[in-house]
Amino acid sequence: MSQATIPTKNAPYSELPAINSVLFEAKAKKGLTFDQIAKEIGKDEVWLAAAFYGQAKFSEEELKKVAGVLGIPSASALGELGNHWWPNRGLGPMPPQDPVIYRLYEGVLVYGHAIKAIIHEKFGDGIMSMIDCKINIEKKPDPKGDRVLLTFDGKFLPYAKW
Amino acid sequence: MSQATIPTKNAPYSELPAINSVLFEAKAKKGLTFDQIAKEIGKDEVWLAAAFYGQAKFSEEELKKVAGVLGIPSASALGELGNHWWPNRGLGPMPPQDPVIYRLYEGVLVYGHAIKAIIHEKFGDGIMSMIDCKINIEKKPDPKGDRVLLTFDGKFLPYAKW
Amino acid sequence: MSQATIPTKNAPYSELPAINSVLFEAKAKKGLTFDQIAKEIGKDEVWLAAAFYGQAKFSEEELKKVAGVLGIPSASALGELGNHWWPNRGLGPMPPQDPVIYRLYEGVLVYGHAIKAIIHEKFGDGIMSMIDCKINIEKKPDPKGDRVLLTFDGKFLPYAKW
Amino acid sequence: MSQATIPTKNAPYSELPAINSVLFEAKAKKGLTFDQIAKEIGKDEVWLAAAFYGQAKFSEEELKKVAGVLGIPSASALGELGNHWWPNRGLGPMPPQDPVIYRLYEGVLVYGHAIKAIIHEKFGDGIMSMIDCKINIEKKPDPKGDRVLLTFDGKFLPYAKW
Amino acid sequence: MSQATIPTKNAPYSELPAINSVLFEAKAKKGLTFDQIAKEIGKDEVWLAAAFYGQAKFSEEELKKVAGVLGIPSASALGELGNHWWPNRGLGPMPPQDPVIYRLYEGVLVYGHAIKAIIHEKFGDGIMSMIDCKINIEKKPDPKGDRVLLTFDGKFLPYAKW
Amino acid sequence: MSQATIPTKNAPYSELPAINSVLFEAKAKKGLTFDQIAKEIGKDEVWLAAAFYGQAKFSEEELKKVAGVLGIPSASALGELGNHWWPNRGLGPMPPQDPVIYRLYEGVLVYGHAIKAIIHEKFGDGIMSMIDCKINIEKKPDPKGDRVLLTFDGKFLPYAKW
Amino acid sequence: MSQATIPTKNAPYSELPAINSVLFEAKAKKGLTFDQIAKEIGKDEVWLAAAFYGQAKFSEEELKKVAGVLGIPSASALGELGNHWWPNRGLGPMPPQDPVIYRLYEGVLVYGHAIKAIIHEKFGDGIMSMIDCKINIEKKPDPKGDRVLLTFDGKFLPYAKW
Amino acid sequence: MSQATIPTKNAPYSELPAINSVLFEAKAKKGLTFDQIAKEIGKDEVWLAAAFYGQAKFSEEELKKVAGVLGIPSASALGELGNHWWPNRGLGPMPPQDPVIYRLYEGVLVYGHAIKAIIHEKFGDGIMSMIDCKINIEKKPDPKGDRVLLTFDGKFLPYAKW
Amino acid sequence: MSQATIPTKNAPYSELPAINSVLFEAKAKKGLTFDQIAKEIGKDEVWLAAAFYGQAKFSEEELKKVAGVLGIPSASALGELGNHWWPNRGLGPMPPQDPVIYRLYEGVLVYGHAIKAIIHEKFGDGIMSMIDCKINIEKKPDPKGDRVLLTFDGKFLPYAKW
Amino acid sequence: MSQATIPTKNAPYSELPAINSVLFEAKAKKGLTFDQIAKEIGKDEVWLAAAFYGQAKFSEEELKKVAGVLGIPSASALGELGNHWWPNRGLGPMPPQDPVIYRLYEGVLVYGHAIKAIIHEKFGDGIMSMIDCKINIEKKPDPKGDRVLLTFDGKFLPYAKW
Repeated sequence: MSQATIPTKNAPYSELPAINSVLFEAKAKKGLTFDQIAKEIGKDEVWLAAAFYGQAKFSEEELKKVAGVLGIPSASALGELGNHWWPNRGLGPMPPQDPVIYRLYEGVLVYGHAIKAIIHEKFGDGIMSMIDCKINIEKKPDPKGDRVLLTFDGKFLPYAKW
Repeated sequence: MSQATIPTKNAPYSELPAINSVLFEAKAKKGLTFDQIAKEIGKDEVWLAAAFYGQAKFSEEELKKVAGVLGIPSASALGELGNHWWPNRGLGPMPPQDPVIYRLYEGVLVYGHAIKAIIHEKFGDGIMSMIDCKINIEKKPDPKGDRVLLTFDGKFLPYAKW
Repeated sequence: MSQATIPTKNAPYSELPAINSVLFEAKAKKGLTFDQIAKEIGKDEVWLAAAFYGQAKFSEEELKKVAGVLGIPSASALGELGNHWWPNRGLGPMPPQDPVIYRLYEGVLVYGHAIKAIIHEKFGDGIMSMIDCKINIEKKPDPKGDRVLLTFDGKFLPYAKW
Repeated sequence: MSQATIPTKNAPYSELPAINSVLFEAKAKKGLTFDQIAKEIGKDEVWLAAAFYGQAKFSEEELKKVAGVLGIPSASALGELGNHWWPNRGLGPMPPQDPVIYRLYEGVLVYGHAIKAIIHEKFGDGIMSMIDCKINIEKKPDPKGDRVLLTFDGKFLPYAKW
Repeated sequence: MSQATIPTKNAPYSELPAINSVLFEAKAKKGLTFDQIAKEIGKDEVWLAAAFYGQAKFSEEELKKVAGVLGIPSASALGELGNHWWPNRGLGPMPPQDPVIYRLYEGVLVYGHAIKAIIHEKFGDGIMSMIDCKINIEKKPDPKGDRVLLTFDGKFLPYAKW
Repeated sequence: MSQATIPTKNAPYSELPAINSVLFEAKAKKGLTFDQIAKEIGKDEVWLAAAFYGQAKFSEEELKKVAGVLGIPSASALGELGNHWWPNRGLGPMPPQDPVIYRLYEGVLVYGHAIKAIIHEKFGDGIMSMIDCKINIEKKPDPKGDRVLLTFDGKFLPYAKW
Repeated sequence: MSQATIPTKNAPYSELPAINSVLFEAKAKKGLTFDQIAKEIGKDEVWLAAAFYGQAKFSEEELKKVAGVLGIPSASALGELGNHWWPNRGLGPMPPQDPVIYRLYEGVLVYGHAIKAIIHEKFGDGIMSMIDCKINIEKKPDPKGDRVLLTFDGKFLPYAKW
Repeated sequence: MSQATIPTKNAPYSELPAINSVLFEAKAKKGLTFDQIAKEIGKDEVWLAAAFYGQAKFSEEELKKVAGVLGIPSASALGELGNHWWPNRGLGPMPPQDPVIYRLYEGVLVYGHAIKAIIHEKFGDGIMSMIDCKINIEKKPDPKGDRVLLTFDGKFLPYAKW
Repeated sequence: MSQATIPTKNAPYSELPAINSVLFEAKAKKGLTFDQIAKEIGKDEVWLAAAFYGQAKFSEEELKKVAGVLGIPSASALGELGNHWWPNRGLGPMPPQDPVIYRLYEGVLVYGHAIKAIIHEKFGDGIMSMIDCKINIEKKPDPKGDRVLLTFDGKFLPYAKW
Repeated sequence: MSQATIPTKNAPYSELPAINSVLFEAKAKKGLTFDQIAKEIGKDEVWLAAAFYGQAKFSEEELKKVAGVLGIPSASALGELGNHWWPNRGLGPMPPQDPVIYRLYEGVLVYGHAIKAIIHEKFGDGIMSMIDCKINIEKKPDPKGDRVLLTFDGKFLPYAKW
């Protein structure tokens, strides 16, 4: 069942260390969700998934905990993601073609100017940080069809003037 | 003070009906925020801003109310946005260069796969709709710097199988 | 109410003869749908809309009928679309950003290879013509939400071998 | 006859699990069409082909049935496409260069605005869903050359206002 | 009937001298084809059409003859295309979206490598010149549908070695 | 002499079945031109070269003949190109950088609009088919330098109206 | 001397309010440098230039001071850049073709990964802010050729974990 | 722990000699920073990191020193980077998606024209060289958050006139 | 004969000051070549042509001389190109479609790596400056066809190491 | 020391026959420059380097000579570059990011229109051939810094008229 859960050739994440495949495979074998693993290590599921995809950096301790939860025999096998490794963040060719990710992108296309206008009116000349930002996903049951609540909680940063 | 508030030549929204400029200018003259206008017509500020930017469609009644609030003498002046007009949605050349909008785009780059993975784990094979979706922006005061709470509340749509 | 119904500067159809605006405006003033006009001149609404957008060529007679239905005083005003004019077909920058058109594009992204495979299995090595092709849109009422039936009826063309 | 039926290096689907090649090869050896396999498992041929190309998700049961029909010895060999796998949909570099797929794309270029206009006139401000959409291909015999009937049956989704 | 026969804003040829519009309009008023004009001035219709589109350079004498045939009162009105003007050749954004031009482009996509291989086998390492090249279009009647005979007659240029 | 005659990694045709390399190598070993092989199997050299590059589909019988001419021991070795294989046509990244192919592309850039105009004048609103099209290359000796005669013989297809 | 100092049609900044031209022209007439104006209003020359190019937002007071220095009769003429205007930042088509700006871009191409590596080693997982960032340019005389000292002084922002 | 510290497949630097991986791995095993190594060989850390990423050329002597510091047994193992090797500089697909590198790119987008204007005012018509340019990174402690001081010290080059 | 000699709308140089058109028109009326004007002002024809196209900066004195040669009544009419104007260099959309310019571009495509290799072998790690570079064009008569001698005389700049 | 001197994976020349690496490696081992080899076989260094990079075609005899000079044991090892091989010319993704090659590209950006204008004035409507073109690089010593003399000697080709 090698390399089953993520694309493996020429795909967006093909430049990830091979160890990432080990994480995905161990998760698949254990049959765990990101939420279940995240709760064990005291993190949110979105952040954890980002780390699996090489978009966030585990501390040494977090790496050990994940190895423990997934039953990866020796934490040293995860050494490739250790102190000297830094995420090279990104998604690959844009615009995204996968419909789930495209809808997020479409949110920028359709509502980007409106969101910018409201941020300016409420906060002034600046941005919502995507570095000091926490992302959360909730399932909101609804008889007409369940809803996804996707929240970005980002710090406002005013523009420097000098 | 003609055409002061939005770009006017070759800009993303240059293809909008000239009436949109009228809306922006009237708003600027009245010194009103989107939130103040939105409350008057019973809508959310983000949706209203989207409509100003030609990304949503006013009903006849909403158009009348907006004309009233902004003191645009005759509602008929807004006729161009009436029954026969449909939004031609979009942002213009991508990726966006404005830092406020780019940060939203960067959210897709960095967290797109993570968000997709969590949606699949919580809902199955499908998408979060960007059509049946409501967007909200809150200001969350914080001594270390106020935070932007940006929420997408979108219906989950499972993939058809046939 | 000049230039109300179609984008007028730098937009996809800005290269159309000015007469196209006259058609759209007359239609808006009469309050007619494409279907109502199409029935009057014995054509389908999709083809007629394509002709309004400069994507199909009216015959002299069709042009006269349309002028009559829309109450455009002198058919000669439509002369620009006459014998010496040929459509310069196309949509503008791709991929399309408007969600209605993007969904059609997404149909190509997601189902393109599947459609190709089935055409090959049913017809052999060749294509479905987009020149000898008729397009139809039906509204199919459904208690869970009305459905759009969009049909392409195109001639199969086998590849030449020589 | 390894990897015979689909491109294998740097091609659009090179990022698919290796198991997809197994499906295509078994189908080729059995000499079955998508239609024949689809009938055995109670699905449509277009959907089945999409699933073979990694653009749709088999349920566990469907995967078992397909394995049975194609004589793939152990269903577990298809485990890579099981519970933890989700389609990463898309076609690869656009515009498509293959003429069969390009013609679909050209349909968007030439008739996109016309289709959008008719949908608005018949349904209002919204889209035809490509998620809740069923696609069908029929062969329509014609003495002047057989025709392809390609139908998209998609749910209309009205835009949220809030 | 101003600016009727060619696109006039932001279109591929919008950068042409305004005099080109005069040529197209005079041709439309006279109701002449390129072939009819070409015969009068002793040139081929394809070359003449290219010159109308600003893709070839008239000599002073040719310009006079064209003015005469089209009844343009004073040849000096065509002075803009005179001695100091040089064609700035090109088509505009690629790939072309118009189906007629796209089919030529598709010929390059599908048969480019084959044509290159045959040229190499017949002539050696070099190219077919597109500068010293004459293009001809013939109509070949055929009961199954008339055919277009499009011929490029270009000089072979061997690669320099030094 | 493995993989000698065509690019083998990340190149335009890297997605071809491995069997195509076998064809090119056998041809190189035999020292045959496309014309020589084509004559043996009763086809034109351009079509044959296209088939070698995966841009056309051999029938079973043609495949056998080619195997015979090239001395490929068992026709079954060519099974990968058999009944279940369909060409995935295309050239790779555009515009083409190779000067031979670029000159064809330049022909579209410089003469595209002129060719379109003449086709319209001679045939009406429609296209020259690139599917029902035969391509021929002749060597025309000339004391000032031999010339390449490249002919496209394609069926005219009028636009459907409905 | 209208429109002398900045590009005015289809150029990167063509979407700026017309008032920006007024600023540039007044500056040219006065024969002042950015440094001279900046000193008068207590700002840095780089920030001021950015504001002239529509990449930063003047406060009401700064706008008044600038109007005074440049001798723009009535500050109200600058009202377009007032409270309701927000910068729509960006440079236009990339990569930049002007050699001065391209060299900055080349700095990212050649030294981007090295800068990223050193930032990680000195600060950890995070970025140098381009929002809370001050830019300075000094002239450093040198007998072998004067040197440009360009400094970015940006706040380090560590990645949020949650 | 093979190939742990840099991306290895299809990534920006995948075209580097394999020896670069050896450098990164030896550095990771020794647990040294670029600054520590740089001090040993008498170079700056930014230049050294650039050389590790294949963006600068080691002299023979520098290569020996680096090998010594990193404990790479035989300097000859680094022969691939010796006399006959020249950097093929560049970053890969642009714009960069990694947020650290993107912020540098955004500096060009937002402040490019301002920097150009100030260089012109201070130095005249010319550029800041990115070839004769030294780059330095300092950590500037700040109670509100440490700051990155990134300096480009580049020679001014006036444009030739002839 | 207004705006006759250069493209005037949306063309590569449409962002030039209007004064450039004046230069081109005066040159056309006088019937002078660049070489003739260049000799009068003591400059090379290539540099002068570059200045006409807005790619180089006239000194005040050069501007006066040019005005004199071309008979432009008042030198002040050329004030727009004076002290406060700086060239915004560039060609517009790439690759260039005009065959003359494309051939230069093709020189980079075909011989770029070879030129780089020879520069490295003759000069070491560095570049040929395009800022301190003089360009010359000579006509070399040849019975087999005259030849263009195009020479770049650029300073070699070695890479800084620090 | 395998594959040391040119990039080997996903790089511009990765599509070259493997034999090209053999050439580069043998050259590196011998410690010869292109000039030294070129003199031995009676060719210019630039042409030879182009041939090494797969951008020119060796004759059988040239190939033998090169093999002799480089001490490649059996000329037959170079058979891949023999009679049946034709260069597939090109540079890879554009614009080039390497500064040496970019400067050549920038020469086209900045001086392209000027060069075109002078060619037209000196030769008429036509191009400088890049096929019948010889390229030469000379080192011109200069106390202020040595200079690169890069010369293109290309045949002028007048446009055909027919």
